[in-house]
Order: sequence, then structure tokens, then C-alpha cells
Amino acid sequence: MRISTLAIVGVGLIGGSVALAARRRGVADRIVGFDRRSVALDRALNDGLVDEGHEQMPRAVAEADLVLFCTPVDCIAAQAIEAAAHCRPGTLLTDVGSTKANIVRDVRGRLPAGVEFVGSHPLAGSEKHGPAHASANLLEDRLVLVTPTEDTSDNALSVIRDFWTTLGAWVRTMSADEHDRAVALTSHLPHLLSSALAGILPPEWCDLTATGFRDTTRLAAGQPALWSAIFHANQTHVLAALDRLEAQLHHFRAALEQGDFAALETLLRQGKQIRDDLSRA
Amino acid sequence: MRISTLAIVGVGLIGGSVALAARRRGVADRIVGFDRRSVALDRALNDGLVDEGHEQMPRAVAEADLVLFCTPVDCIAAQAIEAAAHCRPGTLLTDVGSTKANIVRDVRGRLPAGVEFVGSHPLAGSEKHGPAHASANLLEDRLVLVTPTEDTSDNALSVIRDFWTTLGAWVRTMSADEHDRAVALTSHLPHLLSSALAGILPPEWCDLTATGFRDTTRLAAGQPALWSAIFHANQTHVLAALDRLEAQLHHFRAALEQGDFAALETLLRQGKQIRDDLSRA
Repeated sequence: MRISTLAIVGVGLIGGSVALAARRRGVADRIVGFDRRSVALDRALNDGLVDEGHEQMPRAVAEADLVLFCTPVDCIAAQAIEAAAHCRPGTLLTDVGSTKANIVRDVRGRLPAGVEFVGSHPLAGSEKHGPAHASANLLEDRLVLVTPTEDTSDNALSVIRDFWTTLGAWVRTMSADEHDRAVALTSHLPHLLSSALAGILPPEWCDLTATGFRDTTRLAAGQPALWSAIFHANQTHVLAALDRLEAQLHHFRAALEQGDFAALETLLRQGKQIRDDLSRA
Repeated sequence: MRISTLAIVGVGLIGGSVALAARRRGVADRIVGFDRRSVALDRALNDGLVDEGHEQMPRAVAEADLVLFCTPVDCIAAQAIEAAAHCRPGTLLTDVGSTKANIVRDVRGRLPAGVEFVGSHPLAGSEKHGPAHASANLLEDRLVLVTPTEDTSDNALSVIRDFWTTLGAWVRTMSADEHDRAVALTSHLPHLLSSALAGILPPEWCDLTATGFRDTTRLAAGQPALWSAIFHANQTHVLAALDRLEAQLHHFRAALEQGDFAALETLLRQGKQIRDDLSRA
């Protein structure tokens, strides 16, 4: 897989990491960065993540073969539509957004002939942000979920798949709705929980936390605006995941209130078994 | 601080780690281990964690100056009472249990004259268990909560404090009830949440988890029987902590249901601020 020009819209943690990985693996002859935050763009240029930086979309994408959107989930569709108007026919667009149905739906039917969008979501990230934390290894051995629709051409799907695998990741395809339903529970709910737990810690007990509290709340350090947009875009499925969690908490509460510690141990064993399976996977 | 004989009751992860730290820092001339699990005892002996191993309590504690109980929270009080009957006057007993009020209450008035128990809880641990995972660094720079009562002598408190600080930890004293109320939220609730979240993951979505889900559920791999006993011993405070969390989840749910994403962002910002403060601490 070799691309002549790769354009990355949003050169933060993920965009910067893709740039580094693409460079290390020789995926693109030229990497062009677009970012409205001149600080991020300067950093990406100075650190050699991108060969060129632009604060104007038309110039950034005019010569691109592949445009990757690494911006908040509530910006991607509009930016893809804006960018597509300046792309040559044959240009492919994809993204790294944590939600897919809203983006795929909003883009559909809005692109000029010959320009295709295929949704992607690499299951990789960090509570950190900005190009300074970019890492060429961020995608290595990670899964990228790709969400083609009935309109997606075989060629576009094949290029997008090759792009991610060449960067060291694995690809699985699924529908955008299936994606959103799954990550509501595997990614968005953990974030919500982590934030809720961090949010109720009284300041006077900060010193009484150890690694357990810290690991369980690591995600809470993520960017509130980014996550609010993700919850917005995936509202229904996140609420369904929260229903499921609250039902499980209700079982814990009932066992605790009734002093039924055999039932409590069964619940704990259920969690342990699934968590142990994850460690082995 | 130098002890002639340190007896460790329960040579698992914590007991083994204290033994290693005590040895490295020259705290005790002799370390005696007691464990009813001969596998753990053999391992501790073979790995040089302890100088002697006993499966009978009387012999293990007869010559001890300090006896440290590193057994499940529902066993400590009974073992302390049993051990005390075989100790010389002047022997001090302490523990590493994650709950304190039940242990301090159950031991009170049950020890022979000259033998004192002072509760301790090092805020250090791991979801792993057994002496094979013991580490001399486990206590380094960690906080140990010590819970004296009005009966505790100045000398006993001073020795227990010196013991932990010589092992590289920090000591803070508080009442057993204050301890239990705080760790219900800072330690027991994160465990419950972690387990509840792991427990609702459908098997077909295991592959769709990334580091976020894994970190948030790391604690769920802990030992169910140990944790059931902890929840049992700290039932009231854990329920109060769960109340608090459920109220916070209710705020998240209301913001999601109403599509009030400004409110959601405020909640996320609250969690982030507290979590960021923890990282800086």
C-alpha cells in the first residue's frame, strides 16, 4: 500500500500518531496536515509529523488521495462535506471518530461523484491529547472498526482496509449501528462511569486513593467537550448501556442490603471471569 | 527500628511483600511465616521471604515481637485472638485488612494483658495474589492508615508507626470508622463498579474493548471471596458510597435523556478536574 498524498484533518494525538506510523511504514509519499489550532499545526510541523501544514481546508485536501478526519465526532461530517468539494475524483475519505452512525448518515448523499467516505474507528487512544503525545505505536496490533454501507464500493473498502493494516492495525467491518451499540458499552459507558466516580470524590479523601481508584478513573481525564459530543452522537445506545449497568448495580445493592454475601460473591465471580478472559485474549 | 522476630500470618501478596521489604531494610532479625496453605508457605520459604514457616499458630507467634495479620478481613480478629493467647507479654499485633471497624471491635477486650492490637491498612495492593507476586517495593511511598482507639498505648502506636515508615511507607492515623467510611468510596466502590462493568460485557464484544475498558475493569480480577468479605464487613459505608455514585449516575442519565449536553459537559468537567488533581498529587 502506497499513497501519494495523505491529508490528515486534525493533527492531535490520533492524527499525529497516524502520521508517525504512516511515515515509519512508508505508507505515504507526502503527509499534509490541516488544523485550525495553529499551535497544534506548528507542533506537528516542527516535530516532523507532517510535511506541510495548512489552516485552510481547500489547499490541504486538493491533492490528497486519502483524507483522514481526526476531529471531534460532531465536526467530522461537516468537514468531510466541506473537504470533498475541493477533492479530486477518486479521493477517499475516512475518519477515526468514536461514533459512526451519525457521521455516515450525515455524509450520505452529500459528496460529489467520485469522492467516497468510509467510516473508521481505531480502538486506540489515550486520556492525553495533542500532537505532543502522538506515538507511532498507538495503532499497533489495535483493532480498527470500519463501517461500510450498501453504497460503499469494493475498491474504497479495500483501500481503507489496506491503509489500516499497513499501519499495523487489524480491521473488522460492521454496520455503523452495530458499531455504536457495541462501543456504547465497551468504551462510552466506561468513560461515563469513570467520570461519575471521579466526580464524587470528596477533596479531603484524595490522599486516600490508591492505584485502584486511579485506574478506575483514568478515563475521566479525557476532554469534556469531545466526550460530551460523543455522548450526544450516541445518546440512545449509551442510555441502553447505562440501563444495563444500573441493573447490575441493582443486583449488587440488593445482595449488599440483604446481607446475601453468597449472591455478592457470585456477582464478583461473574465479573472476574469475564475480566480474566479479557486478560487472556 | 529493629525487631528481633517478625511473624507474618498469611504469606500472600501483601504478607510476602512486607517480608521482602523488611528483609531489604533490615527491620527484623528473623521473619517467621504462618500460613494454612502449605503451597504458599513452601513458596515463601523457597523464595527466602521468610526464615521459618509454620502451619501451627502457637509456634509461629511464640517468640514474635510483632505479629502482622495479612489474611482476609473476616479472619483477622479471630486469628489475632487465637495468636495472642500464645504471645509473650509486650507483643504487638497489627494487620493489613481493608476494613478496620469490624476487626478493632471484635478484638477489643479479648487479648491477654500486655498484648496489644493496633489496626493498619496499607493503601497498596494488586488484583494479583500469592507470594509469587510479592514485591519489596509494594509499600514504597504508599500511605498506611493506622486506626488507634482510646485504649491504644502511646508506645504501641509509636512502634506500629515506625514499623511502616521504616518499610518506606507514610502513616496517617484516623478512627476505624472514619477509615471505613473513606475507603468505602476510594477503594471498595471502585471495586464494585469495576466488577459490575466487567460483568455486563457480552462475550461477543470482548474483542471490541480497548485500554479504557481494561483499565476501568482491572480491579474486577480480584479474588471474589476476599472482596465479598470486605463488602460484608463494610456493608453500611459501601451502601452509602453506592448511593452517592447512583445519584451522580442519575445526573448523567438526566442530562443524556434531556439532551442537555452543556450539563453533561459540566459533569464531565467536574470528574476531570478531580482526576487531574489526583494525577498532580
